[in-house]
Formats: sequence, C-alpha cells, structure tokens
Amino acid sequence: MHNYSSKLLEEAVEEFATLPGIGRKTALRLVLHLLKQEDKEVEHFGQTVLRMKKEIVTCRECHNISDSELCHICSDPYRDKETICVVESIRDVMSIENTEQFSGTYHVLGGIISPMDGIGPADLTLDSLEMKVKTGLCKEVILALSTTMEGDTTNFYIYRRLHEYSVKITTLARGVAIGDDLEYADEVTLGRSLLNRTSFEETFKNSKHGT
Amino acid sequence: MHNYSSKLLEEAVEEFATLPGIGRKTALRLVLHLLKQEDKEVEHFGQTVLRMKKEIVTCRECHNISDSELCHICSDPYRDKETICVVESIRDVMSIENTEQFSGTYHVLGGIISPMDGIGPADLTLDSLEMKVKTGLCKEVILALSTTMEGDTTNFYIYRRLHEYSVKITTLARGVAIGDDLEYADEVTLGRSLLNRTSFEETFKNSKHGT
Repeated sequence: MHNYSSKLLEEAVEEFATLPGIGRKTALRLVLHLLKQEDKEVEHFGQTVLRMKKEIVTCRECHNISDSELCHICSDPYRDKETICVVESIRDVMSIENTEQFSGTYHVLGGIISPMDGIGPADLTLDSLEMKVKTGLCKEVILALSTTMEGDTTNFYIYRRLHEYSVKITTLARGVAIGDDLEYADEVTLGRSLLNRTSFEETFKNSKHGT
Repeated sequence: MHNYSSKLLEEAVEEFATLPGIGRKTALRLVLHLLKQEDKEVEHFGQTVLRMKKEIVTCRECHNISDSELCHICSDPYRDKETICVVESIRDVMSIENTEQFSGTYHVLGGIISPMDGIGPADLTLDSLEMKVKTGLCKEVILALSTTMEGDTTNFYIYRRLHEYSVKITTLARGVAIGDDLEYADEVTLGRSLLNRTSFEETFKNSKHGT
C-alpha cells in the first residue's frame, strides 16, 4: 500500500508499523480507526503513550516495571524477601502472580542469555541478583525460566555463579500439565514427570493449600 | 492477564486494547515494546497520534482524508473532474490509485448502506454527490463498491437517486480475475464474465494503453 492521500496519515501508519507484528495494512486499519474516534479519546491515547514512557520506572530491587522506585511487591511487608523467583520478563511475573501461589519476591532478568541475539550475561540484571545472595538477604533462588536451550543455558550460568554461596537454588517442576492426557504428552516431559515424581501425600496437601 | 505491576502500564494496555483486532495480550506486547524503545522514538509516536487527529481533515470535494482543505487529487489540474469514482472508504481510493489506470476523481461515501450496522443513506456523503451531478459538473459516475449485499443495495440506491439527471452511471467490470484458472472460478463470477464479455480488440487496445 502506498499513495497515501495525506502525509500525516502516512507518518502515523509508519509509526504503528514499527510495532511488532503490525504490518502496513494493519497499521492503516488502526490509524483509520483512531481517526474515526472522538477527539478526546485520541488525545487520551496519545497522552497515555507519552506519560507511560516518561513516568514508568523499573523497581530498584526486582527490576520489575513500576510506578515508583520500589514496586508494590517489593514494598509489601507480607511478601517473603528471602525467597526470590528469577524470571525473564515482567510478563512472567504477571503469570506467576495470577496463580496466587507465590508469596515471595521476584527478580526480573530483562532477558535470557542468547548468543544468537547478542544477549550476554552482562546485559541481564545478574550483578544485583548476586548481590542479594552475597549479602545473605536471599535464602532461596527459584529459577523460573523457559525450558528452551537459552533458558537452560541461563539457568546453568546462574547456578555456577551462585552455588558457592549458602543459598538454596531450585527450579520449577516440569511435568505433564494438569488436565493433559498421558497418551499425548511428549516423551521428554513424561520422562521428567516420572523422574521427579512427588509423594502423593505431599501433592494432596499442596492442592488443599492451593484452594 | 491482570495483576499489572504499574497503573500506568495497565492504562496504556487498556488504550491499545481498544484498537480493532488487538486483545489485551497483544496490547501488552506492544506497550512493552514501546517501553524498550528510546525516549525520543516513543515521544514521536505519541506526538504523531496527537497531531494526526488534530491536523488531518477531509477534502471538501471528495471527502477523502487530506492534509489540506482540498486533497492533492482534487487540486490536480490534470485529473478529470467530470468522471467521479464512488468508493466506500479511503482504502479503496488507495487501491485504485495503485492501479495507475484512473485519471478521474473520487467521491468517498464514508461507508455503505447497512441496516444491520445502523448505517442509512443519511450517514453517507450522498447529498454532496448528488449536488455534483445536479450542477452538471459530473458526466460519469463509476460505482466502485464491494460486490456484497450492502454494496449492491448502495449501488441501487445511488442509481435511483441519480438516474433522472443526465449522467452516465457505470460500475466496475466483474469477472474472472487475471491469472485465475477457469476451473476454480465460482459460477456466479464466471457467469457474469460471460454475460459481460468484451470485444477482444478492445481488450487488446486497453491492455496496450495500460502498459
């Protein structure tokens, strides 16, 4: 699509097309939608984008996105500061928070080690994680990264860096998802489920806690 | 997804989620992408949205989106003002302009008659179309609407309103698309192709004109 009848329209389409997963055609649809809305609504849309970038900060403790210097999880006195769940991004924090099963705090790495994308350990918030462990503030580090090659590499790197300190390093249980048919589970997952089998009583106890 | 760690983040996600075809998850991805960009770029994004809504106007002649009161097509002295192509939206103007086969001008209806969506003739720019025909400024009206039920209804409505004036009313040729196999063409289209068959010499002449 070219031949825009307005330079400004073209500019707006170009801006929206820089967003991930949005091509020119979709961008045009979004812009024309906005043009049809009330002045006030579009004004609010634009202002929100401007304010968001200016006012959103990252928490100085966990590096999560926050409105203040210390996020609402890190500043919550009822959250366990000694149990730190290490995640890749803020989206993982939201996923785990939605389970309502975790009362510890988080540490957002801001990515995972991925040489293909040029992301090395120095690009992640590993120094501040090590500092929390070194100072003895943290008793358990839960590694909650994806089970991909990059996730495993990052897990192993963090383990090597932290294991000399007196800290417990755990990782999320991997296994057959609840509700899944064994028949259709892939063999690696099923194998891991078998190896890491848990006491039935413990599972029972945990599920009661959960509800 | 809920449990946003920042009120502003949540607000921004809600804003993006009002766009057509964008759900909360996609909105979050877009917002997190913007947050990772340079301040300057996000500033530019927000300002473009604000300026676009304030400065884009519709052409007083053809109702196309424009930067000035008269769009660049209507103000072009080489465009034929007596041949007006009636389209539903600005996107159709762009599609036809991309063919580089049309040297007339446009008339953007701003929709088509669709009782299901509560759009009646009064919601479209039909009065100004009729005015152009009435005053004799326009010699040919080309109806270039979709071949849907709503498009046909609108075509028929416009025809009824304009046919008493001395104006030629034509419609786009419908037929088997170029490059398509006859075997796979639907029967209605193929039937229309047969009924509206054109002189081979004329087709040959036209295709030479086109290139």
